[in-house]
Amino acid sequence: MAIEPTDREASQPPEFGPAFREQLLDLLTWRRDVRHFKRDKLPDEAVERLIGIASLAPSVGLSEPWRFVLVDDPERRAAVRSCFEACNAEALAAQDPSRADQYARLKLAGLHDAPCQIAVFADRGTDQGHGLGRLTMPETIEYSVAIAIYTLWLAARAEGFGIGWVSILDPDTVHAILEVPEDWHLVGYLCLGYPQNAEETPLLQRQGWESRRDTENVIFRR
Amino acid sequence: MAIEPTDREASQPPEFGPAFREQLLDLLTWRRDVRHFKRDKLPDEAVERLIGIASLAPSVGLSEPWRFVLVDDPERRAAVRSCFEACNAEALAAQDPSRADQYARLKLAGLHDAPCQIAVFADRGTDQGHGLGRLTMPETIEYSVAIAIYTLWLAARAEGFGIGWVSILDPDTVHAILEVPEDWHLVGYLCLGYPQNAEETPLLQRQGWESRRDTENVIFRR
Repeated sequence: MAIEPTDREASQPPEFGPAFREQLLDLLTWRRDVRHFKRDKLPDEAVERLIGIASLAPSVGLSEPWRFVLVDDPERRAAVRSCFEACNAEALAAQDPSRADQYARLKLAGLHDAPCQIAVFADRGTDQGHGLGRLTMPETIEYSVAIAIYTLWLAARAEGFGIGWVSILDPDTVHAILEVPEDWHLVGYLCLGYPQNAEETPLLQRQGWESRRDTENVIFRR
Repeated sequence: MAIEPTDREASQPPEFGPAFREQLLDLLTWRRDVRHFKRDKLPDEAVERLIGIASLAPSVGLSEPWRFVLVDDPERRAAVRSCFEACNAEALAAQDPSRADQYARLKLAGLHDAPCQIAVFADRGTDQGHGLGRLTMPETIEYSVAIAIYTLWLAARAEGFGIGWVSILDPDTVHAILEVPEDWHLVGYLCLGYPQNAEETPLLQRQGWESRRDTENVIFRR
């Protein structure tokens, strides 16, 4: 694996300057949830390298509960797409009629084109971490995995790849399609590849679905 | 607010080079869950700026469900500490006896020293995003908030601050202490301040509690 924390241990704590912070802000701003992918394959080892970086994420009690399942089998991919289509139809029916048409036009899945698909699970049964921090808030296991996904996402964007996170899926169905251990819980299903275009504004915002709000509205004092 | 996506919209998609990726890797590696804080106050506006950056996180359906509660009232802080102590005692009792002593010596909370404390909630009742992506996986609301916390964490570290995420708390008790709306669900309680020392290896690893595993163990193929 390219990323071995032990390789880097001898180094001094880094200082981060304004130029890095500016670029980090660009990365966070331009991350995007990608829906439109080119079909080009990723370079060899890219996925493994990105997962290595994702594994630097924090986890409750150092439990590292993330499990990355690379979905390559065409039949399983087709079954996941069917699951998405069924859930998407249901979601469409649940929308206000005035929004339903708009919703239908949002092409939400890169499931057809992305060369790489990764189902990411939380292993609720892991004994790594010895249960530390999980007694009162067991959901921190899933939060750790969500954060690892985001780490993967940022690392991918920094290398010029794009990620789309599909949540319009039935977790139990995906679990069955992929035949993973019972204790694993689906956190996210990711499409990974080269984006067709780089956009700064979220797709949902560009299409008039929703817009970002002012930060003042989410800060409270007690 | 310092961060206004509209201010940056005219710019071109950024390219990230190897030097930035190297520093990003340093940031991810040196992030650390900080437990030992100096008592120095943060500069004015730092918290608001960091929350502005955190709000660049992705969220399901652009719902932006994060709610940041700055906890400054001494009585409320004391009540949160009492909640931590009660939960910590319970966690201690739940540990294997051979580990209990080690656990007790892990000073898990910066709740005494950190100048800034932030309770972060997910607003499950928000209608922002119109429910998009939440029908089959409603827990994506909490995942969005966990990711915003991590964004705050990275931005803080890039400015030389440290964050400690306390999960040994009873969410209902903290909810009551802070008198927040019923629909809000606690995702994390954060200590923020200047770290006493910068460490690359996780505290739990240094103290022999748990160690990172090889990435090969978390990659599967289907």
